[in-house]
Amino acid sequence: MNAIIEESPTLADRLRDALEHDAVEHLAELIDENPAQDIALALGELPRQHWHALFERLNHERTAEIYAHLPTEHQTVLLEQLDPAEATRLIGELSYDDAAAVLDELEDDHAEAILAALPEGDQQALSSLLAYPEESAGRIMTPEFATVRPEWTVAEALDHLREHSEIAETVNTIFAVSPEGQLLGWMRLKELLLSRPSVTVESRIHTDIVSIEAQEDQEEAARRISHYDLDVLPVVDERGVILGIITVDDVLDIIRDETTEDFHRMAAVGDMPLSLRDASMRLLYRKRVGWLVILVLVNLLSGTAIAFFEASIEAVVALVFFLPMVIASGGNAGAQASTLMVRALATGDIQTRDWFRMAAKEVSVSAGLGISMAAAIWLTGNWLGNLEVANAIALAMFLVVLFGSMFGMSLPFLLTRLRLDPATASAPLITSVVDVIGIIIYFGVATAILQLA
Amino acid sequence: MNAIIEESPTLADRLRDALEHDAVEHLAELIDENPAQDIALALGELPRQHWHALFERLNHERTAEIYAHLPTEHQTVLLEQLDPAEATRLIGELSYDDAAAVLDELEDDHAEAILAALPEGDQQALSSLLAYPEESAGRIMTPEFATVRPEWTVAEALDHLREHSEIAETVNTIFAVSPEGQLLGWMRLKELLLSRPSVTVESRIHTDIVSIEAQEDQEEAARRISHYDLDVLPVVDERGVILGIITVDDVLDIIRDETTEDFHRMAAVGDMPLSLRDASMRLLYRKRVGWLVILVLVNLLSGTAIAFFEASIEAVVALVFFLPMVIASGGNAGAQASTLMVRALATGDIQTRDWFRMAAKEVSVSAGLGISMAAAIWLTGNWLGNLEVANAIALAMFLVVLFGSMFGMSLPFLLTRLRLDPATASAPLITSVVDVIGIIIYFGVATAILQLA
Repeated sequence: MNAIIEESPTLADRLRDALEHDAVEHLAELIDENPAQDIALALGELPRQHWHALFERLNHERTAEIYAHLPTEHQTVLLEQLDPAEATRLIGELSYDDAAAVLDELEDDHAEAILAALPEGDQQALSSLLAYPEESAGRIMTPEFATVRPEWTVAEALDHLREHSEIAETVNTIFAVSPEGQLLGWMRLKELLLSRPSVTVESRIHTDIVSIEAQEDQEEAARRISHYDLDVLPVVDERGVILGIITVDDVLDIIRDETTEDFHRMAAVGDMPLSLRDASMRLLYRKRVGWLVILVLVNLLSGTAIAFFEASIEAVVALVFFLPMVIASGGNAGAQASTLMVRALATGDIQTRDWFRMAAKEVSVSAGLGISMAAAIWLTGNWLGNLEVANAIALAMFLVVLFGSMFGMSLPFLLTRLRLDPATASAPLITSVVDVIGIIIYFGVATAILQLA
Repeated sequence: MNAIIEESPTLADRLRDALEHDAVEHLAELIDENPAQDIALALGELPRQHWHALFERLNHERTAEIYAHLPTEHQTVLLEQLDPAEATRLIGELSYDDAAAVLDELEDDHAEAILAALPEGDQQALSSLLAYPEESAGRIMTPEFATVRPEWTVAEALDHLREHSEIAETVNTIFAVSPEGQLLGWMRLKELLLSRPSVTVESRIHTDIVSIEAQEDQEEAARRISHYDLDVLPVVDERGVILGIITVDDVLDIIRDETTEDFHRMAAVGDMPLSLRDASMRLLYRKRVGWLVILVLVNLLSGTAIAFFEASIEAVVALVFFLPMVIASGGNAGAQASTLMVRALATGDIQTRDWFRMAAKEVSVSAGLGISMAAAIWLTGNWLGNLEVANAIALAMFLVVLFGSMFGMSLPFLLTRLRLDPATASAPLITSVVDVIGIIIYFGVATAILQLA
């Protein structure tokens, strides 16, 4: 890993080179040959004045495509560097969903100035997208889609698409609508192409419609696209009128970001607006310190619980020896249970109404785990201590594993019910709470069985 | 959550009803109106003899589509219920990638019997897919795709697609190939449709090709499709000859499953072949008990470390009071750091070669966290104990948080280097290891500062 490897120049190196030597043709070539996503990524490694140079010097049809793939923060910075006319032109070339996302991140004044300079039609389309709540399906849809009428023939539908598909983000899936715009069915472009030109669209459409209302959550849109293997999910209003579409590539990003959020929450890290690579040390510090401090307070209770049983510790010092095994096992079993639930809730594998069924299963599973762990610690205790101590710590182990598992399993459901993210049931939180209760159970059981009080 | 809600009959109820009353027409209607995924899901709630009845009684064009969406375990059970001819017919109707996945799960004899009964062409196609390593791009591709020749006109290409697209899984993206099958470029069906019929394909294709070699990992295929927003990823051999395609809906499933695997590993749960909903208590027990037992052994070291410092504990019992705060903070900071790295490595946000850069950042961030936590515990210590104890525990806190963070941050990289899954750096594992080292640091520092030895 530490060996020095002679590497061929990266795309970032070659772009820098072309920009510094003002080699406009070479630049255009580089941009033709590489995917927009890679160019956007390489741009992040160049100094900021180069970004401006690239976008200014380059009147390339792919400028907007590259811009659309820049991280949000970079998009904002770049837009502030460009003069107003250029900024407006760039936004005007983006698809509506991408443009709405960029405008959303700008200062209100700046966004309104750009919006005002756009053509009337774009203004209206963007304003209506921005009127939907954040993270709703309506906010991320694009109003550029392809519809046909069921009474048309296949030939008429194809002619219509040839004339109008320039404006549609995708025509892979085509929607059949009523005169009022109500969604009646769907078909693939492939199916249209393969059909005899004289048959009606109606005879060819599928009526098993999957759609989403504009007010619903974007995560629900992602779930439907993923569950139903859709290329495109139509967004409708409460009357079933189609308003826009969400494409599968949009939700791939949403799924990735929401999953990353879940991972971070489950490790007691706050939500990060940036990737780990781009996050500053300050940001990382701020996002991590919060829960750490809160959990210190929880662990203060652990200390208090231990102090409360000081007499027991002084009577049988061996109890301290077995303490870490018992309370850590409870925390570990709890972290397992909560993670299983959080993930299954996130994928839709289980719903909140499944709490009872899951709890019934968890009682049996954690009893089994508790018995196994109790047996392991009983053997250790009997070997290193004596039978009485072994009995006490084995019973404590069983109870702590049972409590840890049931607590870890239930907390995600409880959080969902309180309309909080179930992923807040982080391993550190579960571990810390189980530590406190575990210490009380442990010394409580030991004090009773060993008659220390 | 516990209120009894009058619910309308579910799809499963309605299917059961239709099956029990032998209402074939009603059954066909239900199947027409509902997405295949929902029917497959509902089937899981019906008794197994109903599955057979549904697939036997129903000579419906969507049978194969519904079957393809059943969970793997159900697919195998159902196939064993059907007589050999029916089983072969069903497999023959699946797309090659789905068929290969099903055959892969069967007993070797059974799979070979079905394979032998299929038409020659299907046999060959399936055998060549099954020859690729498990979890490789080649194993999940479908060899049914649409190609055109660059020298053809758009009209010729469209005619060709009309004749041959029946066999292609998707024609949304079309690939231009040389006479030897080498991939030269790609275009969208929409672009073909919009082009003047007389221009050549060559003049319209894009040359920024993203592909994957058949031997590469399926996770890499998922990453490319996701990163490049692709509908379809072409799979090529080492000469660049196109062998098959992987579609975005295939990788959505892979991404979901691989992410779930990461979640489970990070909570010290073994890989589960089934969803949480379908997992038996036995399976859950087996997948959870392994790490719990291993971690007890690690925690045995914690106990040993505490026992080693028995004299210090007896001298200053207050030290036990602050112990949970210090070692838990180290574990929590470590769990944060490892999760950030595991997730960033999984999304491709960082690579293993970024270890040094990440370590440099982590030193600063964790020093900041350590100072904050040390300040918090110093105040508590000074308030509850005395200045000397406060100094000792604050220094211990700083060092333990620093160690925990650096350990948690480095372990995923180390595991990657050892060709293990970085997600094995679970919160429970990090916590347990940091506990042991944390106890040694804590009592070591306290013994030295308080001159207890």
